[in-house]
Amino acid sequence: MENNVQTAAANGVIDADAVIIGAGPVGLFQVFELGLLEIKAHVIDSLPVVGGQCVELYPDKPIYDIPAVPVCTGQELTDNLLKQIEPFSPTFHLGQEVTLVNKREDGRFDVETSTGTKFITKTIFIAAGVGSFQPRTLKVEGIEQFEGSQVFYRVKDPALFEGKNIVICGGGDSALDWALNFVGKAESVILLHRREEFRAAPASVAKMKELCEQYEMQLLIGQVTGTEIKDGKLAEVKVTGADGVTRRLPLDMLLVFFGLSPKLGPIAEWGLEIERKQLKVMDTEKFETNVPGIFAVGDINTYPGKKKLILSGFHEAALAAFGAAPYIFPEKKIHMQYTTTSPKLHKILGVESPVFD
Amino acid sequence: MENNVQTAAANGVIDADAVIIGAGPVGLFQVFELGLLEIKAHVIDSLPVVGGQCVELYPDKPIYDIPAVPVCTGQELTDNLLKQIEPFSPTFHLGQEVTLVNKREDGRFDVETSTGTKFITKTIFIAAGVGSFQPRTLKVEGIEQFEGSQVFYRVKDPALFEGKNIVICGGGDSALDWALNFVGKAESVILLHRREEFRAAPASVAKMKELCEQYEMQLLIGQVTGTEIKDGKLAEVKVTGADGVTRRLPLDMLLVFFGLSPKLGPIAEWGLEIERKQLKVMDTEKFETNVPGIFAVGDINTYPGKKKLILSGFHEAALAAFGAAPYIFPEKKIHMQYTTTSPKLHKILGVESPVFD
Repeated sequence: MENNVQTAAANGVIDADAVIIGAGPVGLFQVFELGLLEIKAHVIDSLPVVGGQCVELYPDKPIYDIPAVPVCTGQELTDNLLKQIEPFSPTFHLGQEVTLVNKREDGRFDVETSTGTKFITKTIFIAAGVGSFQPRTLKVEGIEQFEGSQVFYRVKDPALFEGKNIVICGGGDSALDWALNFVGKAESVILLHRREEFRAAPASVAKMKELCEQYEMQLLIGQVTGTEIKDGKLAEVKVTGADGVTRRLPLDMLLVFFGLSPKLGPIAEWGLEIERKQLKVMDTEKFETNVPGIFAVGDINTYPGKKKLILSGFHEAALAAFGAAPYIFPEKKIHMQYTTTSPKLHKILGVESPVFD
Repeated sequence: MENNVQTAAANGVIDADAVIIGAGPVGLFQVFELGLLEIKAHVIDSLPVVGGQCVELYPDKPIYDIPAVPVCTGQELTDNLLKQIEPFSPTFHLGQEVTLVNKREDGRFDVETSTGTKFITKTIFIAAGVGSFQPRTLKVEGIEQFEGSQVFYRVKDPALFEGKNIVICGGGDSALDWALNFVGKAESVILLHRREEFRAAPASVAKMKELCEQYEMQLLIGQVTGTEIKDGKLAEVKVTGADGVTRRLPLDMLLVFFGLSPKLGPIAEWGLEIERKQLKVMDTEKFETNVPGIFAVGDINTYPGKKKLILSGFHEAALAAFGAAPYIFPEKKIHMQYTTTSPKLHKILGVESPVFD
């Protein structure tokens, strides 16, 4: 989804000063710090919503160590940051992953995402936290070849599954919701889960059990342990139950919902120095990577003494913004100003400058 | 004033793990970060209240760049931080300045304050911001010799001024409040201010003008430009008016209220490496000064890339706490834990550990 796209050029390539990869708390605060320096930012995230791991992994868990915020949830933290960056109207490009970063001869970067959004940008801020969230895959030999034809980790086109014999793996809300959805539309629906307990909402679990009693669908406890391929097609999966017995399960389509797990992903291929799966920054003055113009802030970076604290990411974002400014305004001398006293910053923030004696 | 003093030893010397100099936002957050590591802190400040320059210089001015706090005043920031550190019950020693820091042979430090509070501490965190707040002095040659006998920058004992001819310099609340207070008690009260406009509360200014009309006191517009000394006493001050004319003003006592101004003060004498009036830290890993065991955080420190931002001070405080832990717990391995997930931190914070699947 693209909100507030202002700078798309005629050829569809967005001409940007700053592209931020990651819409977690640190990525959002990077927007703020760049905004204070009058640098407009584009923010890309693989998730369909902003908030990063705070929202994906613990939206309702309290956080106690945000300075001057005695307690807040990941969702509240995200909401407050969104409010704080409102004056800077960042452009969000959500539900897409950066697939390409390439340094151009003019010193700028080509950036492309999985949905085809293209940028030419002067600077890049990688605030990708633990990496991009990817569906956890089914670890069964030979299954990859059927991805996109018979094996799916998300449903893009529900019509594809109508009239088919489908097996859905998982015990969370995605698995249950899609199972309930396909009953009556698919030829048959089998829910396959490794244990009797479900993470999904109790109401969905109750509904599923009701449908099973009515023979509208079927629940199996067990795990996929093998495949049977016929004429180049996935004809059956082998399912091993809690009793240790392996049964054969014929199917047309296999849907797997094992949750999301973060992966460094394509970032590893951009020529950046990596140390134990983290991006190494060259100093703690600008938090710039070994590629001039690419900065790394928050949990994804590493330097001597690094602690993976959100408050450290905030500090890094502030210094990275100052470090990046010369790439965007090579002529301009950047002065340090304070939001409390600077009429210029008040104008940028869209607030009244109070008059003091 | 001493609150919550728990560890005063029999000899009156407080045995401490950590002494924080400065009760501004960064000093307060230092309490929090030490608290998470189970290190109890004593906090000293020269001001009679917590909050530092935020509260002293701009209690009501909005601050916009505290991450996840779209807007707050200096007072609100301080209140939120006080709430956040509540679980750690720090001991505050306010209205006193640290006058002595001395490294002992056992590696710990002797610390003494202007009111005689004494500590032996394993670590020191200097979070003194712009320095300690001292009254701005009257810049007239030879006036210093009368400080404490005839020239005063604060009123400790009002009885001293009763029956005397007093001149009060300044246009703020302190000057007006004391002028109004001494009318009827002093032999005569003259308020001397450099201009017709006052920073003091309009009601006090109106009351003062009313008393002037009733000949209870006198207002002069002008500045002290010289002195007349007779028999070793300050007999007269010379006052130059807006008209350029200098008049002589006989007096017994001179009270000066020109506001407070921050000074590095005694910190300069503790053997710490100083660079352009800032304390140099040796690295950005622990923010330790050249004296092992003494850390510098917030506006008072300097390192390559340093920006005087409150959020940077918060980051520095977090890393300094980890850097200091080995001095306090030499045997213990310090593990990084998160307030969101660690049952141990939940216990320290006094909150319930939620149960998650």
